[in-house]
Amino acid sequence: MNGLTHLGDDGSARMVDVSTKAVTSRVAVATGHISMNEEAATAIAQGLVKKGDVLAVARVAGIMAAKRTADLIPLCHPIALTSVTIDFDLETQGITVKATAKTAGQTGVEMEALTAASTALLTIYDMAKAIDKAMVIDGVRLLTKTGGKSGDWRAP
Amino acid sequence: MNGLTHLGDDGSARMVDVSTKAVTSRVAVATGHISMNEEAATAIAQGLVKKGDVLAVARVAGIMAAKRTADLIPLCHPIALTSVTIDFDLETQGITVKATAKTAGQTGVEMEALTAASTALLTIYDMAKAIDKAMVIDGVRLLTKTGGKSGDWRAP
Amino acid sequence: MNGLTHLGDDGSARMVDVSTKAVTSRVAVATGHISMNEEAATAIAQGLVKKGDVLAVARVAGIMAAKRTADLIPLCHPIALTSVTIDFDLETQGITVKATAKTAGQTGVEMEALTAASTALLTIYDMAKAIDKAMVIDGVRLLTKTGGKSGDWRAP
Amino acid sequence: MNGLTHLGDDGSARMVDVSTKAVTSRVAVATGHISMNEEAATAIAQGLVKKGDVLAVARVAGIMAAKRTADLIPLCHPIALTSVTIDFDLETQGITVKATAKTAGQTGVEMEALTAASTALLTIYDMAKAIDKAMVIDGVRLLTKTGGKSGDWRAP
Amino acid sequence: MNGLTHLGDDGSARMVDVSTKAVTSRVAVATGHISMNEEAATAIAQGLVKKGDVLAVARVAGIMAAKRTADLIPLCHPIALTSVTIDFDLETQGITVKATAKTAGQTGVEMEALTAASTALLTIYDMAKAIDKAMVIDGVRLLTKTGGKSGDWRAP
Amino acid sequence: MNGLTHLGDDGSARMVDVSTKAVTSRVAVATGHISMNEEAATAIAQGLVKKGDVLAVARVAGIMAAKRTADLIPLCHPIALTSVTIDFDLETQGITVKATAKTAGQTGVEMEALTAASTALLTIYDMAKAIDKAMVIDGVRLLTKTGGKSGDWRAP
Repeated sequence: MNGLTHLGDDGSARMVDVSTKAVTSRVAVATGHISMNEEAATAIAQGLVKKGDVLAVARVAGIMAAKRTADLIPLCHPIALTSVTIDFDLETQGITVKATAKTAGQTGVEMEALTAASTALLTIYDMAKAIDKAMVIDGVRLLTKTGGKSGDWRAP
Repeated sequence: MNGLTHLGDDGSARMVDVSTKAVTSRVAVATGHISMNEEAATAIAQGLVKKGDVLAVARVAGIMAAKRTADLIPLCHPIALTSVTIDFDLETQGITVKATAKTAGQTGVEMEALTAASTALLTIYDMAKAIDKAMVIDGVRLLTKTGGKSGDWRAP
Repeated sequence: MNGLTHLGDDGSARMVDVSTKAVTSRVAVATGHISMNEEAATAIAQGLVKKGDVLAVARVAGIMAAKRTADLIPLCHPIALTSVTIDFDLETQGITVKATAKTAGQTGVEMEALTAASTALLTIYDMAKAIDKAMVIDGVRLLTKTGGKSGDWRAP
Repeated sequence: MNGLTHLGDDGSARMVDVSTKAVTSRVAVATGHISMNEEAATAIAQGLVKKGDVLAVARVAGIMAAKRTADLIPLCHPIALTSVTIDFDLETQGITVKATAKTAGQTGVEMEALTAASTALLTIYDMAKAIDKAMVIDGVRLLTKTGGKSGDWRAP
Repeated sequence: MNGLTHLGDDGSARMVDVSTKAVTSRVAVATGHISMNEEAATAIAQGLVKKGDVLAVARVAGIMAAKRTADLIPLCHPIALTSVTIDFDLETQGITVKATAKTAGQTGVEMEALTAASTALLTIYDMAKAIDKAMVIDGVRLLTKTGGKSGDWRAP
Repeated sequence: MNGLTHLGDDGSARMVDVSTKAVTSRVAVATGHISMNEEAATAIAQGLVKKGDVLAVARVAGIMAAKRTADLIPLCHPIALTSVTIDFDLETQGITVKATAKTAGQTGVEMEALTAASTALLTIYDMAKAIDKAMVIDGVRLLTKTGGKSGDWRAP
């Protein structure tokens, strides 16, 4: 036996049964980073000063992707998210994103937070790739998770 | 003026006009990596020996996400992909993914390859998170790009 | 401070937190109108006499769009609709649509009703535009809203 | 009066009101079959022996389609599925699929199980059609349904 | 070597490369049948006499599903359909559906026609299941296929 | 005979055949307006001064909806848009939106431009409804259409 909960006894994929799990309040926070050259970072920052559209578009993309997580990740359960927020931190050669997802449900929202962060970063890549094609997305991971039977979890 | 091609003169977002670009054959290759503890990597590898479902599911997720790129990345043009392939390389503490997208069209397929790689990695996270919640996605980036007016490009 | 509930303290967009709102029964009714020349209205009416397909298609389009509201309107919460109905009123030079959406949830269903009405009207435009391209959609608005902390509301 | 519950009094389509139905545990099991020549069945079976990808892809397709049922079937209510499993039975000239869907909700999950089975079968067709274009899908039907006011049901 | 064109050399799934295929006019016709008791068939037929909504809804569902085929069938190529039509034939204890899909492209439209037929039949099931839960979908198969390198094909 | 081009000879809906239409450059411009009280208009305008997020979100929503037009409007053909732009004009008691869609294809892009305008307006409603629920969407219509066999068209 191994711990891969999405595999049936014979190794076939399945959407695991959460019917008997309690409905509890659940929150997950994920992060990620995109590194870029100074020209790209400066151009985005100047856009921010003027109208903030690059980050505004990336924020919308992340929020919308969070709502579609079960459509993208095959074995994810559909979840009625009650909140999604996305924050950005601009650096001289990169941007850090933090995504927070909440629900009251039978499964956690880790994948929703991670999908929001990843999609926001991909959107930044898309919008800045005319300046720098060598951007790299790094450090996409879960920071914290609260609620649910397995209890709270915090990245080591 | 800056190089952010998705912003209008006043800084507002737009889907840039590619009407006059030539239809050429275009290929993009992207990569990415997920690090995990040995227990998770071993469980996935054993699954591969038996039925390969974890990677099979991640591969399907990546291919399907590539086809939905324009639905996820707000300013991406819809593209009729002619091919998507996804390869995995298993290591003792991680998995590397390589995604290749092709089309004959007026815009490149970098975002399709990157979205495929990212979604495949997120799917691996989802399926193995019961074993290791501290997995980290790193190194999501474009490797090569061929076709189009700007010519070929290779990651430095 | 202003009343735009979808903006964070710093003006950035977010999906507002409804975690602590009570689950109550909620109903919203929206309306809208499309004006057209008599030739188009007559053709649709005659279709109705025969098989009713124009309005049947528009009704289906409206119902399906209501279910996708959270996919279309970036900061809308996903909602499990329990009922959607769409009624049409044919006039000599136009059609009025009325859409009713219901749920038991933590947020209202105004956007679902408005999205249903708008999409039904756009579908009528699409199906009749070969006769009259100058059709105009007007008066898309909320009629009533019941349930939720802010209480009932009726258009003045 | 007739029994078509999705039609209004005047015959127009509507998503019926389930607001007052009780939330109960609901399960539905559907089945279906695809017949094919021995060459196709053997090729799929050999793939199964090696990596099982044809059935793995069909399984993922069925699970993902189950989650999109309300997006495909116009008058279906959106449902938060708590479990979907898909099993295959290989024969010398065909494959039988069995799909099980679960939820705790106000409406049944028959359509989710049937949509999962149908889409898994269509995916098998797609992947094997280079060998046998004359494959036929048969016997797609509901096997059992439990939960809800109308009580349990079992195919005669 | 076997003929499963969606599997890579190592048995892994991929979206096969059609980049070098010629763009030709392609048509596919698929059919399918749903059997039901006389009460259900009569109720649908009477609806047809009055407003035809059951079949109208099923027709719309089939057409919309055809457009989403590449979203549902994992290894299907996205295709810009130029035409979809769906015809029904009512019998005393069942309904036959025929779906025709067309495009000018690099891949065939068999899956689009089959998906349209299947979804139309599932929609009929959904709308009539309150009368007859024992309905069975049978005979879903390709009738003809024209265009493309492999030439025309007709069901034996 | 009437001019409703989406109906078959027997009145049933169909996606009309555009296979033989020429591929030409096509542009459509649509407009629409939302009226609101001064408080709402001022709050949006101040947001614009600060970060412009309300209009930025509405712009993204409009662009993304344009790409999904064939998913929402049942008989629309899928189109590979080559450009979408959305402009806003703020007034003291309302906002005017103008949406421009382009493609090189066999069908026009009127519905894409109208869907973009409608969805942008609905998004504004969603984001400002906490201040003014009585907002009204008016004047959603086609302004110009160029390209295609039927020639150019301009709203009278």
